[in-house]
Amino acid sequence: MNKNKLVVVGVGHVGSYVLADAMKTGLFAEIGLIDIRENVAFGEALDQAQATALTYMNNVDVTSGGYEQCADADVIVIAAGPSVIPDPDNPTGEPDRTLLTKTNCAVIREVMAGIVRHTTEAIVILITNPLDTMVYIAENEFGYPEGRVFGTGTMLDSARLRKLIADTYDVDPKSVSGYMMGEHGSTAFPVLSHLTVGGLPFGEIDRYLAAKEDIRNPDTVKTRIVSSAYEVLNGKGWTNAGVAQAAITMAKAVLLDERSIYPASTTLRGEYGFDGDVALSMPCVIGREGILAKLPVDLNAWEKQKLADSAAFIKAAMRDAGTGPETPNKAA
Amino acid sequence: MNKNKLVVVGVGHVGSYVLADAMKTGLFAEIGLIDIRENVAFGEALDQAQATALTYMNNVDVTSGGYEQCADADVIVIAAGPSVIPDPDNPTGEPDRTLLTKTNCAVIREVMAGIVRHTTEAIVILITNPLDTMVYIAENEFGYPEGRVFGTGTMLDSARLRKLIADTYDVDPKSVSGYMMGEHGSTAFPVLSHLTVGGLPFGEIDRYLAAKEDIRNPDTVKTRIVSSAYEVLNGKGWTNAGVAQAAITMAKAVLLDERSIYPASTTLRGEYGFDGDVALSMPCVIGREGILAKLPVDLNAWEKQKLADSAAFIKAAMRDAGTGPETPNKAA
Amino acid sequence: MNKNKLVVVGVGHVGSYVLADAMKTGLFAEIGLIDIRENVAFGEALDQAQATALTYMNNVDVTSGGYEQCADADVIVIAAGPSVIPDPDNPTGEPDRTLLTKTNCAVIREVMAGIVRHTTEAIVILITNPLDTMVYIAENEFGYPEGRVFGTGTMLDSARLRKLIADTYDVDPKSVSGYMMGEHGSTAFPVLSHLTVGGLPFGEIDRYLAAKEDIRNPDTVKTRIVSSAYEVLNGKGWTNAGVAQAAITMAKAVLLDERSIYPASTTLRGEYGFDGDVALSMPCVIGREGILAKLPVDLNAWEKQKLADSAAFIKAAMRDAGTGPETPNKAA
Amino acid sequence: MNKNKLVVVGVGHVGSYVLADAMKTGLFAEIGLIDIRENVAFGEALDQAQATALTYMNNVDVTSGGYEQCADADVIVIAAGPSVIPDPDNPTGEPDRTLLTKTNCAVIREVMAGIVRHTTEAIVILITNPLDTMVYIAENEFGYPEGRVFGTGTMLDSARLRKLIADTYDVDPKSVSGYMMGEHGSTAFPVLSHLTVGGLPFGEIDRYLAAKEDIRNPDTVKTRIVSSAYEVLNGKGWTNAGVAQAAITMAKAVLLDERSIYPASTTLRGEYGFDGDVALSMPCVIGREGILAKLPVDLNAWEKQKLADSAAFIKAAMRDAGTGPETPNKAA
Repeated sequence: MNKNKLVVVGVGHVGSYVLADAMKTGLFAEIGLIDIRENVAFGEALDQAQATALTYMNNVDVTSGGYEQCADADVIVIAAGPSVIPDPDNPTGEPDRTLLTKTNCAVIREVMAGIVRHTTEAIVILITNPLDTMVYIAENEFGYPEGRVFGTGTMLDSARLRKLIADTYDVDPKSVSGYMMGEHGSTAFPVLSHLTVGGLPFGEIDRYLAAKEDIRNPDTVKTRIVSSAYEVLNGKGWTNAGVAQAAITMAKAVLLDERSIYPASTTLRGEYGFDGDVALSMPCVIGREGILAKLPVDLNAWEKQKLADSAAFIKAAMRDAGTGPETPNKAA
Repeated sequence: MNKNKLVVVGVGHVGSYVLADAMKTGLFAEIGLIDIRENVAFGEALDQAQATALTYMNNVDVTSGGYEQCADADVIVIAAGPSVIPDPDNPTGEPDRTLLTKTNCAVIREVMAGIVRHTTEAIVILITNPLDTMVYIAENEFGYPEGRVFGTGTMLDSARLRKLIADTYDVDPKSVSGYMMGEHGSTAFPVLSHLTVGGLPFGEIDRYLAAKEDIRNPDTVKTRIVSSAYEVLNGKGWTNAGVAQAAITMAKAVLLDERSIYPASTTLRGEYGFDGDVALSMPCVIGREGILAKLPVDLNAWEKQKLADSAAFIKAAMRDAGTGPETPNKAA
Repeated sequence: MNKNKLVVVGVGHVGSYVLADAMKTGLFAEIGLIDIRENVAFGEALDQAQATALTYMNNVDVTSGGYEQCADADVIVIAAGPSVIPDPDNPTGEPDRTLLTKTNCAVIREVMAGIVRHTTEAIVILITNPLDTMVYIAENEFGYPEGRVFGTGTMLDSARLRKLIADTYDVDPKSVSGYMMGEHGSTAFPVLSHLTVGGLPFGEIDRYLAAKEDIRNPDTVKTRIVSSAYEVLNGKGWTNAGVAQAAITMAKAVLLDERSIYPASTTLRGEYGFDGDVALSMPCVIGREGILAKLPVDLNAWEKQKLADSAAFIKAAMRDAGTGPETPNKAA
Repeated sequence: MNKNKLVVVGVGHVGSYVLADAMKTGLFAEIGLIDIRENVAFGEALDQAQATALTYMNNVDVTSGGYEQCADADVIVIAAGPSVIPDPDNPTGEPDRTLLTKTNCAVIREVMAGIVRHTTEAIVILITNPLDTMVYIAENEFGYPEGRVFGTGTMLDSARLRKLIADTYDVDPKSVSGYMMGEHGSTAFPVLSHLTVGGLPFGEIDRYLAAKEDIRNPDTVKTRIVSSAYEVLNGKGWTNAGVAQAAITMAKAVLLDERSIYPASTTLRGEYGFDGDVALSMPCVIGREGILAKLPVDLNAWEKQKLADSAAFIKAAMRDAGTGPETPNKAA
């Protein structure tokens, strides 16, 4: 008899929130945790397992252990690896992105190797950064069935976009429809050509609702979204609430076969002129089999340029880290 | 100490579902029921009160009684009155709409009179049909503060629209943004000029997603929505699940001050060239004070004509029933 | 890829509420409806399917059709058959229980025959009355695997018991632990020897909490529970909210493999001196495989007598209707 | 128009989880955060506010700021102060409990002084450790209305107890009714004389359900609960999931006026022979006005001794830290 099962790999700041959010969905009978710090996985599992004894909580079976837990998993969320690595030569300056990429390439390869020993059926959702590079590796180096591996990508950036628009016009962000595309990171860009508020195109909102500030310039919007990420990061030291909820929202779309359209990070296969050489976020239909379809929506000139910039940035980052389509397969 | 309180007036097929949905929100500490069939209100209250003793249920205090229950209500949902009245001269033919209107005009006047004896603070959400006429009376004859009375209107028709579009393209209806406007009933029309699927305008969807059938003609869409209402009605004998959920979704937007943009039935005050002479549904911002703003979105030629038709239909129906701006105030 | 699926057989007053409650759980990707009135099943499915287009709703795939829907069902809830049949000789008097039993025996046999053509894997939860006779037939005449068929039984009566106790002492019914046993109906009895409020045995509550009325006599409690059922029935004309929630609570215990202890109606196999000759409600452990264990708790003298009375009543009712262990197998 | 509002003071490991849990309840229109690290409160608020733009999320208004946010709060949860302070003379050894107490006495006095400048209406729920000393100070030094300040106390320890029992007998912890009393900490003790599983007294469970291990000795149970707390702590470095959920469960009982019986830490006023000289956890009825009643359940000899030990331990800890009834009021 099947039981819905989630496995979370990596239970640091992000993975622990993925777990916490998952506990509240009523969707999972079993949740397995994996972390190289086995005691942390054990402690997280026990803490949440004890919480099931409180009123209103579902009796979810929360365990910790190794990759064997993936064998009967329906969804696996990967939040393993560090999120920031200080520059060894300048510990208090900008963190070292290339070193982070190299480190997490190794992490993801180890995690994916662990997973495929036990399943190629589960839908795998990646959160580990730099996200698009991680998705590229996971999707292309392990023979995992197409569409079954993807990343939260700009799902979080898109939430930030909708929240910014919503706050500007003092409405519910759920009344804003729209997304960011490209890299999950500083080159992500808002697709304002396809953003609406209560059905109103972006350019018409001001005719109906008073704006708290002028955000009509897309560069302004883009800058505000990136800086809002840093505001969270600089404020609390990490970001986890939004991205964890993004992952669980996608997991729910999978388990219930909702066929929801969400931006997800995926290797492009002909969309926007890229073919197998880069992964980035674009709108996808998400259901029980993972990514069911991709929607390469028409972009305006500004958006096309930003997409090109974003793809170039991701490819350069992969190259700098010695991975990606232009370097020998590291998993070989 | 305040406690969130809902009052439901009329607990027939619709009101009983409003109650059932409200029980699950975790939003209300108290729910009061009013029905001229006092024993029905009593039985409904007791049945749901007993269900609170089951695992996972909130301990909501469900009671039945008179209008005094409205005194400290935050939201009042009116689902009183019959939904269909057979033609006395032809009991098996088309039901008598004019007789229904006359009957429910009296019902709503009695209900509103009962409410205003105890409060003019609560947000009042009407479901009783013919909805737009009921809203007109409730909003204009009792001196109730502006914005605090409105109807679910085309909130339900809009859900049907999104479901139709979602089914046609096999995606989640939550990925469809759009609404119907005008009368809640057979003259409601889809505002396809402002409908999007995953950000894609209505006219572009076919380029990305395969359609199960051709619904590009707005008249086709309009007809399908109206007939889907009849399919429910002819199937089960009434419609309640969708409209009850619509009312509770609006009640939640009120209680949490979500400022969500939903179509609601409200008396027009200058929008679309109508001024105080008709109530119909248009997109509104719904929050703690009720309707916070109206969004008179630009309509295309087809939509403008349908709006004119719909308004004319509502006004004629009011006139036929001897109520509305062109007849003496029946509440006097 | 598995998707959690519920099938509801019979979508009258009760089944439609089972559906409505199921929609809110977030547990089911698919819900199938079956009713001999195919148009009613169709209308219910469509009404709820349209409601999925409202904010906050899960995109559940709701369909109607035949028993083939059971093939991949995880849980099947049976709410088919009339709930009351008037006495043909005295239409305004007491309804005819024997006729109801005979009618619903045929209904359940038809439903179970329909189910077993497609599955013997799904967990089957019965609501149809007279419940214990229906359970007996479903469990014993179709070779369905042991433990996979059971009835909501006194799950509802037990909720009424906890609500009565909770109201008497003005506390949350969730702080009351306790159940009714025996027949689901007028011979059900409270097991006060095992009822606690905040850990306090029934006999000690009065030392800590003021009682609104004196309910210390178990006969008083028993009478009050039975009459509270009639108060709902006489008030609204039927009871559905509580029993539907009871069924869904059990379905959740199954899907999440919660191993919750709930009273369920099941054929006794040695418990309390009965062996395969009667089905009635006793505390059971409910999980992914249905009834995992039965807990034949020690009863005091009053409770033992009531159990004997209740079992005798059920057996007599079966005999009167020409079914049960003492009559030839009607399914043969 | 009232809106349900929560304020969380201290958004470290615990407070951030209180916030995360609160976001999911659908109960709060507004949540305010306060932390001496203003940027952390700002970052937490922003992270969760951005998450509201994801599907299914309530549009909660999450803000950060000062104590003025308490003015219209319904519930305030205090999770401020460090949870562990290393011994300055032995940084790798046992943490210094007396220093922690002294530090957090100052923290709580500052927090309560901040709160009472703006409200004495909100229900205040404390989580800060050592919990019972914090409750004693908050409840007795600020003239806050009786019953409106209490601590989560052994609500968490009780969840651990029910989970231990549930795991031992392989049932749902929601089917276990029972609690720990006394100090929230190592001297908490299980009240096995009032614990039941599916209505079965503790001493009878073994007759019906197979035990995975022998836990019949109350000292074994007590030791296991304390060590399970350390297992979480040693595993992940802190405990937060369980205690945050405990606080939110209590907050819900308050907002919905559920009148649930939960163990809460409160200053004893005649119960168990203590009168105003110690705060510890005992079963209480929790509703809209906070603690509505205390239930001084009869204890057996072992439990009485443990209660005396626990109270003595708390009083000694207060004395060592120079606070409590036997030392001059530090708030003066």
